[in-house]
Amino acid sequence: MTHTAPVLATPPWWQRDDLGYRDGRLRFAGRDVLELAEAAGAPLYIYSLDRVEANLSRVLAALAASGCATRAYYAIKANRYAPLLQRLAASGRCGADVCSPDEVDLALACGFAGTDISFTGTGVSSRDLDRLLAVPGLHINCDTIGMVRRIGERAPGRDIGLRVNPATGIGYADSDKLTYAGAKTTKFGIYREQWAEALAMARRFDLRLTTLHFHVGCGYLAPQLDRWEQAVAAALAFLDDAAEAIPDIATVNIGGGLGLPHRAGDPALDLAQWSAILARQFAGRGVAIAVEPGDYLVKDAGLLVLEVTDVERKRDTTFASVAGGFNLHPEPVHYGLPCEPAACLLREHDTARWQRMTIAGNINEAIDLWAEDHPMPPLREGDHIAFLNAGGYGAAMMSNHCMRGALAEIHI
Amino acid sequence: MTHTAPVLATPPWWQRDDLGYRDGRLRFAGRDVLELAEAAGAPLYIYSLDRVEANLSRVLAALAASGCATRAYYAIKANRYAPLLQRLAASGRCGADVCSPDEVDLALACGFAGTDISFTGTGVSSRDLDRLLAVPGLHINCDTIGMVRRIGERAPGRDIGLRVNPATGIGYADSDKLTYAGAKTTKFGIYREQWAEALAMARRFDLRLTTLHFHVGCGYLAPQLDRWEQAVAAALAFLDDAAEAIPDIATVNIGGGLGLPHRAGDPALDLAQWSAILARQFAGRGVAIAVEPGDYLVKDAGLLVLEVTDVERKRDTTFASVAGGFNLHPEPVHYGLPCEPAACLLREHDTARWQRMTIAGNINEAIDLWAEDHPMPPLREGDHIAFLNAGGYGAAMMSNHCMRGALAEIHI
Repeated sequence: MTHTAPVLATPPWWQRDDLGYRDGRLRFAGRDVLELAEAAGAPLYIYSLDRVEANLSRVLAALAASGCATRAYYAIKANRYAPLLQRLAASGRCGADVCSPDEVDLALACGFAGTDISFTGTGVSSRDLDRLLAVPGLHINCDTIGMVRRIGERAPGRDIGLRVNPATGIGYADSDKLTYAGAKTTKFGIYREQWAEALAMARRFDLRLTTLHFHVGCGYLAPQLDRWEQAVAAALAFLDDAAEAIPDIATVNIGGGLGLPHRAGDPALDLAQWSAILARQFAGRGVAIAVEPGDYLVKDAGLLVLEVTDVERKRDTTFASVAGGFNLHPEPVHYGLPCEPAACLLREHDTARWQRMTIAGNINEAIDLWAEDHPMPPLREGDHIAFLNAGGYGAAMMSNHCMRGALAEIHI
Repeated sequence: MTHTAPVLATPPWWQRDDLGYRDGRLRFAGRDVLELAEAAGAPLYIYSLDRVEANLSRVLAALAASGCATRAYYAIKANRYAPLLQRLAASGRCGADVCSPDEVDLALACGFAGTDISFTGTGVSSRDLDRLLAVPGLHINCDTIGMVRRIGERAPGRDIGLRVNPATGIGYADSDKLTYAGAKTTKFGIYREQWAEALAMARRFDLRLTTLHFHVGCGYLAPQLDRWEQAVAAALAFLDDAAEAIPDIATVNIGGGLGLPHRAGDPALDLAQWSAILARQFAGRGVAIAVEPGDYLVKDAGLLVLEVTDVERKRDTTFASVAGGFNLHPEPVHYGLPCEPAACLLREHDTARWQRMTIAGNINEAIDLWAEDHPMPPLREGDHIAFLNAGGYGAAMMSNHCMRGALAEIHI
């Protein structure tokens, strides 16, 4: 007698080699998610460091295909889980992109050398600068002319980078919220109108301008690549403007912002196309390309598992309440970036019999909803839901709001 | 020779007895704010416990004027700074409203008795319930029928409250974001359609329903009071529906939500009018009124002081950057509730010569702005800005995003 386990007629859009259902149980990186949650307790973040490395490999391959000298810095603000930082540092395949002195210290503690760390911050105080300048080999990109001056006053002759803002760029899902460079003036970087003054300030203190930095995209996917290329070209025009004044530029850091699908139907980023853009834009420039992927490396390498506390119909809505709220991961509520919910245990494989539910967190705020009107298999109290794409800007931004901040993080 | 210190021609809208400029220096609760910041270091939260007590006194007086038996519970999720909780517990003038087991433990540790603590939570797990039920005297309001059942299974015959949702209410500034009861179905409480079933579930386990709870307003000010009264009436109709079935109701808890002005021109809440509504709605009901002020007690009793790192014109905008971002206080960015910026030191008293600035935080996100296009006196690097109305949902919701979470809290 053969036993055929039930399967979903159509695999979920997010299924991949290391993530999917087997015999009705969610598996991630070769492990049973429910077993992990029952052992460690929920709320639980589970990270696959292999997935992070695979994502990094894809970026490095695309960089290499550009034909330029290249370097990747992992943006540790996306996820500063120490074993993850240690693994990346030990791999020697990327540096660390940091934005605060405490991030520098953490990167050093996790094994990155000072020369493998690139700082790009905003609102940098003089106290911050004193800490940064004390780290041998640390690269610092300046966000204001005042920051150039204050570095010059403290460390004349030093190497620096300048963050520029071409006043054009791509926000996530084209929203203003995550637009770092666009029509509206943002706080970031040196605009063209300030460029000559910034260069003069660097000269005044004999600062060697070795790096041009910009960040002109956030979460961009295939359809945004054309506009991203235009923004990159606009940023590179800063170089053409001042080629004689900045003979020491050796690196152009294109920031991060590589996006990944959050919803069914989101078009993935085509890294071959991305690489072709780099080849085209950087051909003949004789500079190295640096890139700062954050989300792209870690977001789809992490799940957040929460326990279902109630399933109850209220008027027109079926609510599945879970023991964890937006304070554990602010992106769905505050940025409109969903973490797809997946039941850890499937009791019903026929998705036609699934029910639309609103998945609500345990914070006393009406906004605290993980997903609205989302098709889910039958759920009951004590079940667990894994929220996918939770590896970036989740635990790193968690708060103890309502004193609901207890969570565990593990890696597999 | 007489010396006349320069003064502002028009006092700022937020000036009050314990907050304002003297000789061009910002004073709060009798202390010089800049001196406090220089001594403790910024980022710094400064709380006035006297102001909290004064706010509480105003609420208690308004409650007393209703002619009903009344009780206040401070919603500790707004600010759980321990000396503040200790002071309120020691005063004996209010209990604690809590929404998680950890908040219960903190309230107990700060001196509140179990009988002075009222729990109203959502997404309450069975593990949570076991912890709550172990606290003698703790009052528990149920948010779902499942929670009634799970309490019944564990503690038949116990006293409970029911949170109800009349499907009408007022959100802050009439926004959906902070609407807990309104046209859209929220996760909170028992709707009329579920009322009979909820009561039957309580009866099944001989649970004594002693409290009706609702929360139908958030941040309501004078102009919203009429609609708030209608929502209160709609919630009280739950009682009329089932008077015979719920003979033990002794308290109606009207939740929190009392608002305070955030911007120039915001109309203050008129507590006399509020009290008259309570008198009108509760006349002859023979129940005590409980209320859960959070923000109303603490918000205007706290400042957040940050240091200016740069003042720089970028294209059409003058940015004053400060060494602290929205991770220290999420309300301005994520809830649209501003914390009014006030320079700690006034070098220019003629507001006609002030300049419009955008005050930007030190988090690497474009949204991280404290105020946009706001008139400010001349500022320079190293100056300090106090953000007013920062005492509620500030430190309580802070995160370590970008590892920029270091801050100090003091009280005066």
